Amino acid sequence: MNYQHNFNPSISDMDVFNEIVKEKENIGYYNLVYQDTSDFKEYAKSVKQKNIVVIGIGGSTLGTYAIYKFLKHSKTLSKQLYFLETTDPIDIKSKVEAIDLKDTLFIVISKSGTTIETVSIFKYINSLVKCNQTNTLVITENDSKLNSYAKTNNIKTFEIPKDVGGRFSVFSAVGLLPLAIVGIDIDELLKGTRKIHDSFFGIDSNRDVYNRLLKKARFFVEYKNNFNINVVFSYSSRLEGFNKWYIQLWGESLGKIDINSTRQGLTPIGIIGPIDQHSFLQLIVEGKRDKTVTVIKVDDFDSNLKIPDIKLHGLEELDYLDNIKFSSLINQQADATIESINNLNDIPCDVITIDGVSERSIASLMYEYELLTSICAKFMYINAYDQPGVEAGKIILKEKLNK
Amino acid sequence: MNYQHNFNPSISDMDVFNEIVKEKENIGYYNLVYQDTSDFKEYAKSVKQKNIVVIGIGGSTLGTYAIYKFLKHSKTLSKQLYFLETTDPIDIKSKVEAIDLKDTLFIVISKSGTTIETVSIFKYINSLVKCNQTNTLVITENDSKLNSYAKTNNIKTFEIPKDVGGRFSVFSAVGLLPLAIVGIDIDELLKGTRKIHDSFFGIDSNRDVYNRLLKKARFFVEYKNNFNINVVFSYSSRLEGFNKWYIQLWGESLGKIDINSTRQGLTPIGIIGPIDQHSFLQLIVEGKRDKTVTVIKVDDFDSNLKIPDIKLHGLEELDYLDNIKFSSLINQQADATIESINNLNDIPCDVITIDGVSERSIASLMYEYELLTSICAKFMYINAYDQPGVEAGKIILKEKLNK
Repeated sequence: MNYQHNFNPSISDMDVFNEIVKEKENIGYYNLVYQDTSDFKEYAKSVKQKNIVVIGIGGSTLGTYAIYKFLKHSKTLSKQLYFLETTDPIDIKSKVEAIDLKDTLFIVISKSGTTIETVSIFKYINSLVKCNQTNTLVITENDSKLNSYAKTNNIKTFEIPKDVGGRFSVFSAVGLLPLAIVGIDIDELLKGTRKIHDSFFGIDSNRDVYNRLLKKARFFVEYKNNFNINVVFSYSSRLEGFNKWYIQLWGESLGKIDINSTRQGLTPIGIIGPIDQHSFLQLIVEGKRDKTVTVIKVDDFDSNLKIPDIKLHGLEELDYLDNIKFSSLINQQADATIESINNLNDIPCDVITIDGVSERSIASLMYEYELLTSICAKFMYINAYDQPGVEAGKIILKEKLNK
Repeated sequence: MNYQHNFNPSISDMDVFNEIVKEKENIGYYNLVYQDTSDFKEYAKSVKQKNIVVIGIGGSTLGTYAIYKFLKHSKTLSKQLYFLETTDPIDIKSKVEAIDLKDTLFIVISKSGTTIETVSIFKYINSLVKCNQTNTLVITENDSKLNSYAKTNNIKTFEIPKDVGGRFSVFSAVGLLPLAIVGIDIDELLKGTRKIHDSFFGIDSNRDVYNRLLKKARFFVEYKNNFNINVVFSYSSRLEGFNKWYIQLWGESLGKIDINSTRQGLTPIGIIGPIDQHSFLQLIVEGKRDKTVTVIKVDDFDSNLKIPDIKLHGLEELDYLDNIKFSSLINQQADATIESINNLNDIPCDVITIDGVSERSIASLMYEYELLTSICAKFMYINAYDQPGVEAGKIILKEKLNK
């Protein structure tokens, strides 16, 4: 009998960085930051319809929704964006009834081109309105069945590059095209991603991003058996879509079997402040010490909305709230939560403050989370870019449906 | 030195049941199932406004939203229900701008009567529209400051009983009154809760509920160090509000320090099928074995919506979907997920199938979860009904704001 192993001893920061640099040659999302967006902008300008309906699920919608949700009330957007993503019949019906389908552009997005939910809903839409080159757009891989359908019907297509995974595709056509159409500045989005990219990869002399991401990823991975849950506590309802996108990115990328056949996985949780101070915070503070907490704050809400100094007889004890801006209140709520967590001294907590409600801010945040995910995967000796665990369910479903 | 302890050895099912029966004398939520609802219905009938805005947070809104979200598209409701619950200025502004405030009844809900978010938003509303007995209703404890305000201004009030905690208050005035006003049958809701209540407490000869809840709670608690995360996987977008309510109920009730000063806590996660098959499922299937999974299915969606047999050239390989009802598709997706999880043989998984999209179904589900939470708390030697962990943050916030 012969047995040798080194169990992959802890890898150095520089080793991880070099692995990422090597991976950058084959994994497409890293390089989207420098792409040419003129085709997207040109197509966006040509769209006449008032409603934009994205038909897609998972990686085909979550990132777009995250950015749209974050920005939509702070900008005057020219069009409404909707998402059809579930097979729940009541959901489909209520959404479709609320939209003027005759004044709608349908964007069908599926990387594989054969996503069951997407094709089912698209078929249903076809029974309500004629889908053709005037009102339909397809975003898929170049050699997919959905692409064949589009070509046969002279429907315009944009490509999802083979080397860009669904959950890392928000800065490809998948996200940029719908967002450009509704009036979001996609060049500003890419500027936000480049800021993070350049600092991480050393193009910029400021290496803050490199330093903080390697430190954070190392901590998360080294303590993963103590803290198997990573809570993102976002202090703005505008970040609800970001939270959902983060959950997919983190869960689906890091929930894997590693090169030693050991199950890995850090569990993402997304909560919203101050709402979830009244829901989840108690568990963080007094519950088992199995969670890290990342608080996300928005520095400038660009809002002067304040609590008026109106007297409510009986409620005078709360008059100290008078004349406080809501933006200041929510940020002080965040600070109070952070302070109360830090006072406990045994809950790992970090704070990300983004500048404001702008394209650059949200794009920087999202690109940083993509990098963090890739780095954690390297520390964990897993592949961040596949999802073999969901295949079994798909096969079982197909068998059931074919019966 | 003297030291004696028994470390609270495992408690029997009958002991737990007896503790619950004893607790039922002091904890009010158990007994809401047999209350008289005529005052609520009478008030509801008198409401003339078209829009109903609930101002509240946490336990004052989550349960109401859960039921409203579940039922609103399956019934023709007479009024629109909105929730103002966060201090995010962009959220407040965008919501308020979308509502005709002159045709609105404001329902201010706060158990303590001095919830910062609720009073701040209510003050702001007062600067936009005069709030008085014609357009305002207050739901609070009888001796709260908010109640004094209401009395001073001749504003109608309904009581939150002292012994009904916020997160267990959905079947008190907190939930029943707004729901009755928008046209939901609250007597049917209570019938749903009674079905579970009577089976659990032995009023009904069918003890299914007693058996399954004690078994489930015992499992969750005994294996809490292996499976510290409880995933609820709801196969309907209508259950999104239920998931949020469950997260508060579970997290805030069970995240506690027990009688031996040990930190307890089971972490709730709520996901939606089939959407999160494309997000979280990979982590469940291949990730670390730290999760239990409860799948919730809706047996009858009461919908004939189906996938039409329209040919899409190029996509013929998906023609096996033709003529399948969406309700059948989503339930087969749930079944495929369950089967793929059960095939792994090492993920604890249970399945709850509710009858349909009705008052009784959602109320039974929610009351069952309230009981399950109380039972788990007994097994864990903790108090399910307080939330001492969030007080420190409140004190810090008040200091900051008073500066």
